[in-house]
Amino acid sequence: MVKNFVLKGDVLFCSEDRKVHTVPDSFVVCADGKCEGVFTELPEKYKGFPLEDHSGKLIIPGMTDLHVHAPQYTYRGLGMDMELLDWLNENAFPEEAHYEDKEYADKAYSIFTEDLKKSFTTRACIFATLHREATEILMDKLEETGLVTYVGKVNMDRNGSPALSEKDAETAAADTRQWLQYIKGRYQRTMPILTPRFIPSCSDELMKELGVIAEEQGLRVQSHLSENPSEIAWVKELVPASKNYGDAYALFNTLGDEEHPAVMAHCVYTDGEELELLKKHHTYIAHCPDSNLNIASGIAPVRKFLDEGVNIGLGSDVAGGASLSLVQAMVHSIQVSKMYWRHVDQDVKPLQFGDAFYMATLGGGSYFGKTGSFLPGYEFDALVIDDSGLRSMRKLTIQERAERMIYLSGECSIKSKYVSGQKII
Amino acid sequence: MVKNFVLKGDVLFCSEDRKVHTVPDSFVVCADGKCEGVFTELPEKYKGFPLEDHSGKLIIPGMTDLHVHAPQYTYRGLGMDMELLDWLNENAFPEEAHYEDKEYADKAYSIFTEDLKKSFTTRACIFATLHREATEILMDKLEETGLVTYVGKVNMDRNGSPALSEKDAETAAADTRQWLQYIKGRYQRTMPILTPRFIPSCSDELMKELGVIAEEQGLRVQSHLSENPSEIAWVKELVPASKNYGDAYALFNTLGDEEHPAVMAHCVYTDGEELELLKKHHTYIAHCPDSNLNIASGIAPVRKFLDEGVNIGLGSDVAGGASLSLVQAMVHSIQVSKMYWRHVDQDVKPLQFGDAFYMATLGGGSYFGKTGSFLPGYEFDALVIDDSGLRSMRKLTIQERAERMIYLSGECSIKSKYVSGQKII
Repeated sequence: MVKNFVLKGDVLFCSEDRKVHTVPDSFVVCADGKCEGVFTELPEKYKGFPLEDHSGKLIIPGMTDLHVHAPQYTYRGLGMDMELLDWLNENAFPEEAHYEDKEYADKAYSIFTEDLKKSFTTRACIFATLHREATEILMDKLEETGLVTYVGKVNMDRNGSPALSEKDAETAAADTRQWLQYIKGRYQRTMPILTPRFIPSCSDELMKELGVIAEEQGLRVQSHLSENPSEIAWVKELVPASKNYGDAYALFNTLGDEEHPAVMAHCVYTDGEELELLKKHHTYIAHCPDSNLNIASGIAPVRKFLDEGVNIGLGSDVAGGASLSLVQAMVHSIQVSKMYWRHVDQDVKPLQFGDAFYMATLGGGSYFGKTGSFLPGYEFDALVIDDSGLRSMRKLTIQERAERMIYLSGECSIKSKYVSGQKII
Repeated sequence: MVKNFVLKGDVLFCSEDRKVHTVPDSFVVCADGKCEGVFTELPEKYKGFPLEDHSGKLIIPGMTDLHVHAPQYTYRGLGMDMELLDWLNENAFPEEAHYEDKEYADKAYSIFTEDLKKSFTTRACIFATLHREATEILMDKLEETGLVTYVGKVNMDRNGSPALSEKDAETAAADTRQWLQYIKGRYQRTMPILTPRFIPSCSDELMKELGVIAEEQGLRVQSHLSENPSEIAWVKELVPASKNYGDAYALFNTLGDEEHPAVMAHCVYTDGEELELLKKHHTYIAHCPDSNLNIASGIAPVRKFLDEGVNIGLGSDVAGGASLSLVQAMVHSIQVSKMYWRHVDQDVKPLQFGDAFYMATLGGGSYFGKTGSFLPGYEFDALVIDDSGLRSMRKLTIQERAERMIYLSGECSIKSKYVSGQKII
């Protein structure tokens, strides 16, 4: 099916230099799933394309969630009174253990995928659980949504719970290979990604095996990095040869490279040598401010990351984060950056709307190639947003409407959603 | 009209010791607008009362917004890239100047009051603008909503803008007296409150006059206190005799007493002598975390205030805060307290759900007398909340459902709302 069409509305997007562009009452053209650009007058050659008129509505690129735990979706908004390591033992591990049961997984993942489809997210990097079959169920369901995703069967062979642990490195690696074999060629838009939970959950042997599989099969890796001070201290004990937490991943060849970059969630305490290491490996930082607030991890110095040119996007980190909403993540990223400036370091200026919009769209989107913008040649991922419920006395610019929409997204609605030119809402 | 009825549902409320009580599948009884208590079996004497069956829904006390600017509602979610003093000059003052125009005020205040009526708020302390007639329009509209409110015509005779300033202290005081005279006996549930904008906006002469009017007419005062470091430094210059910002109010007899307590918004930097002063005067602190985030003011040490037994509730502070939602304010209060603990002072423990729920209901509600609880004798202010849209795999307790509801309020809805036993939704 050739996906050729035109959307008309009030358009807002970022370019690669992180500049925000607004084009009122204009035409965004999709040809064969790719964006042809944004036009104030529709060029002759597109006049035969079907036109969807969304005049008065906002049209923005789809958003990328660089970090979300599918099995934790069922307890979002709960259990927020503890820090990371306790939170994992009390909330995450007991819940994830249920995914041994395929029926449970089927029901729970239906809820997650239905809600993700309705969200601002068009692409995502997703943690499943350690269970191979449940992960396949999740991938089947995601494929059906039309979203484009990386999905990881989680690896964890130490420091889990009796109900949630792989037996040993060998079994874990074998199970991972079996999973990769089973899904080979099965999906068009659902890709595997190697997913060591985090260093404390994976023995050296398992990490080595994952490094080997990544290399063999040309796979990417996703994990967690420098989220919480106690976690960081623990990693130093567990991998004494590592210069820093990031280096613990690098030692096992799991930080990737430009062609296969890893995505590392949080990086709240990443600085100095660790930051240099991430730059060297072209690693993507998934900034998850809602989670960092809720489990009291701290505030990541995102302005520094942006200034240093590190790859960075946003993550909902459900269920450390309560909501799948990436526009809420945008708001949180701006808000916490103001507290970082006020209470931690006044040399690190707060983020503004454009910084957050960049991270939610092109910043994270670039993990999937050319996505997250309406520049010519980008994948046609788009959201049509109705903000007419927000009454105002003023005539607002498009950027003002977009800013208002992120702060008051509960009063706006997504009217249509496209992924690579396919309409999924 | 005698307001006698019974609500059935899953009930959650705080007592004066800040404890959270949950009573599943129970009966809350309203007799003549007051709460008779919560019962697991309906006592014989109430069996003749009409029963509204909200089984499966949450029933919680109405919430009090201790600080909100009605005229700023029209630009909520906008202009978040500056600090307080610039923000006032760029956003607040130009907008408020429009309320000279009664037609504008009528239209804008219709939007505000309609939305406030639909919110979690049952009672509120509201800033209008300096315009007497527009303030009367706002009060007329609020009276119609059924909400109970304190409303203040703002006083400001210095450091405003050419378009937004009272001429001098004498004119300001006369205008205020005229407003108070005009509204006398006009409303049942809409009360005047003296409203010096903040010390930088009010000359010593005007503050003195307001102290006199408060004393003469037995009125309360609302204002802003210790929100931002630059503001605090400015107040020290403006009122050199004051020992601290709070003392600048006390010097002009505007901090009130136990019978007529003042409400002071923010208190981000309130400590030591200033805190003692507020305790002495029984002042209410309106904690406004969303605003403190958005205009980068900082994090108020709320745990300390609670431990010290200071009167405290929550404020939306629209439009420093983007939303009228007090459940969002609850979430923000918990989140920022975690960042205070993490980045400012690890001796000050984070707030938990119960602390925030207390502040939103009984904490702020007590400013209006016995409101914000379902203990016997309290005003019957109640919200019925449908959280059935939040699908889960678990059987949740009422408190878990309430916690989830505040984090995911956009996916819940208010089915009914009562103020002093009057159903307004």
